[in-house]
Amino acid sequence: MRAGPSQEEVRRHNLGTLLRYVHVHGATSRAELTSRLGLNRSTIGALTAELTTAGLVSEAAPRETVGRAGRPSLVVRPESAKVYAYALSIEVDRLRAARVGLGGQILDRRETDRPRGMQVLDAVQPLSSFVHEMRAAVSGDARYIGTGVAVAGMVRRQDGMVRLAPTIGWVEEPVGAALRAELGDAGQLTVGNHADVSALVEHSRGAAAGCDNVVYLYGDVGVGAGIIADGRRVAGHGGYGGEVGHMVVNPYGRECSCGSRGCWETEIGEFALLKHAGRSDQCGREAVLGVVDAAMRGDSQAQFAVRQVGEWIGFGVGNLMNIFNPEAVIFGGTLRDVYLVAAAQIRSRLNAIALPACREHIRLRTPELGYDAALIGAAELAFEHLLEDPMLLA
Amino acid sequence: MRAGPSQEEVRRHNLGTLLRYVHVHGATSRAELTSRLGLNRSTIGALTAELTTAGLVSEAAPRETVGRAGRPSLVVRPESAKVYAYALSIEVDRLRAARVGLGGQILDRRETDRPRGMQVLDAVQPLSSFVHEMRAAVSGDARYIGTGVAVAGMVRRQDGMVRLAPTIGWVEEPVGAALRAELGDAGQLTVGNHADVSALVEHSRGAAAGCDNVVYLYGDVGVGAGIIADGRRVAGHGGYGGEVGHMVVNPYGRECSCGSRGCWETEIGEFALLKHAGRSDQCGREAVLGVVDAAMRGDSQAQFAVRQVGEWIGFGVGNLMNIFNPEAVIFGGTLRDVYLVAAAQIRSRLNAIALPACREHIRLRTPELGYDAALIGAAELAFEHLLEDPMLLA
Repeated sequence: MRAGPSQEEVRRHNLGTLLRYVHVHGATSRAELTSRLGLNRSTIGALTAELTTAGLVSEAAPRETVGRAGRPSLVVRPESAKVYAYALSIEVDRLRAARVGLGGQILDRRETDRPRGMQVLDAVQPLSSFVHEMRAAVSGDARYIGTGVAVAGMVRRQDGMVRLAPTIGWVEEPVGAALRAELGDAGQLTVGNHADVSALVEHSRGAAAGCDNVVYLYGDVGVGAGIIADGRRVAGHGGYGGEVGHMVVNPYGRECSCGSRGCWETEIGEFALLKHAGRSDQCGREAVLGVVDAAMRGDSQAQFAVRQVGEWIGFGVGNLMNIFNPEAVIFGGTLRDVYLVAAAQIRSRLNAIALPACREHIRLRTPELGYDAALIGAAELAFEHLLEDPMLLA
Repeated sequence: MRAGPSQEEVRRHNLGTLLRYVHVHGATSRAELTSRLGLNRSTIGALTAELTTAGLVSEAAPRETVGRAGRPSLVVRPESAKVYAYALSIEVDRLRAARVGLGGQILDRRETDRPRGMQVLDAVQPLSSFVHEMRAAVSGDARYIGTGVAVAGMVRRQDGMVRLAPTIGWVEEPVGAALRAELGDAGQLTVGNHADVSALVEHSRGAAAGCDNVVYLYGDVGVGAGIIADGRRVAGHGGYGGEVGHMVVNPYGRECSCGSRGCWETEIGEFALLKHAGRSDQCGREAVLGVVDAAMRGDSQAQFAVRQVGEWIGFGVGNLMNIFNPEAVIFGGTLRDVYLVAAAQIRSRLNAIALPACREHIRLRTPELGYDAALIGAAELAFEHLLEDPMLLA
């Protein structure tokens, strides 16, 4: 229990709230800020002036004023080109990097394949090179805020230790420390879980904008979730919550890479789909898309594979709906492609499992930001420090 | 996104925070309030004076001052005898009612059996009689705050409609409206889910005090959970979250009262235990305790039953640990008794399912407040209005 804030705390909170608003929603008129934030016009003016002086926002007359009476309200924009973070994403098959401006624009990007089995030090080097390349192109007056990293695994937030990433093949690997050492002067670096950061971005500016209760699923070889309850991430005690891929759904099922048996990801992950399709010799996103395409073209074994996996997707989503009663479930990664071809199957199965009250307002969605969600989400880890207290870095 | 509060909002927030602190923690010295709430001494003095005038707290010299130097700090207490709520609990086998004082003390109580199959109107009448009886014994200067109701089912919070309570046998029953009509002038009445309100109480003043991430399980015929993530209830969009009893764990299992198959409660609820023990002709808490006692005395069929159910308890708890990464799991209702005799079995199974990072700080617990948690929790539904803004009711 915490007492109410002081005047000074309120002012800093309001600065952060205004900056966060334009960071998430983009250019916004003073008039709209006044009504959205519940502050009066002079307060909005003073806060905007302070953020402008700090180089975090700029103000200009709106581009479209035709047909409106009176003096148009100034529009406040985040300084996307001048305030930026680096975002790195370590995925099963890809290593990706981007420079992301305040406001969530991707200003520059690089990516390369990640051969399965690649070790931490071998992954850190290309990522570091990407950052150095992108840095060379940055103009002198742009301000670096920090670096955020998304890893498809369980991450200890305070130091970036990857506790377990079975699909990447890493256990207790100090990814944060390795990247900090390699990037040298790159300053503040924060590591988070890939599904968690993607979920937050789809929640703030994507397919689940306006929804307070969201389950964002991300699948490839493994399956993870970023879960939002009442507008906030369900992190758990150590930050390891959301490991829905290791919810056991079939006690009589296959062994899982985690050591257990019948985990959800053994039924809906890439390996299961390819096995049902008779393509166990293949792997990766292209192989999954190959099965989905074949199913759409009428290939009966591919259709069988999609049906089998669709059944189990509906099964697990039904369970999660009973547990979380979300407004939206989002299918990311290759689960997106499987969802698009198996939607009827999934709906029918989850209708049999989810209780009526838990499914009455449910929306099943695909991501709006696709694979960019992880990069924008990684950048959010860095921007978060700035948004919490914009004057700390002024 | 919301801007920071005004001065007046801060004052009201601080009044609520102080009142909530003594409501949860009991008598607290001004010195401790100063340090816990992060406010200075004069502010604490002013807030206490205001709450005293409103009749919500009282101040007195501490009882024990021997051996301390200086003037002892005054102790602030909630006015438990003078400010109260009624709490009602509708359970599978019982109807219970209590008068609960501010601070969570049960001042008076009544209960009776609820025959299985009893309809809403038949349940409302004895509860109403209990309230009228208890009201007759209340002194004239005591202040009534409201009535809270806990129901073992899915409840729409805004109007107290019970959407689905399969173990009680109710579907779309207007329990809130029926109680309001019967209680007449009883004022504000709020209905909540039994496991949810119990969880909040074990979290604030029971077995999970100090834990921010908690799964509280309550079992009898059915199984429900109240889930706390980062200190807040996971309610879901309509308030129906936590229906873990309808997480399907055994796709090849028995039909469930919800219409699905293999739900967790079909494997760990009362019916499963009694069936494995060869006692399907019995039902209720006494019958469950009979099996547990027999298992402890060495009865092999009872031991078999407890082992079977223990396996499935561990199974589902392991799933929930992967999903929520809680610090504490609490076993309430008859699950408490089964847990006590099957703890080793449960531990062993959940160790096989929960990921290492998700189980490294886990504590498995029995409730501290037992069956009183639902009554105290129901009263909290009424007190919540007061704690949100103590001056509203002044």
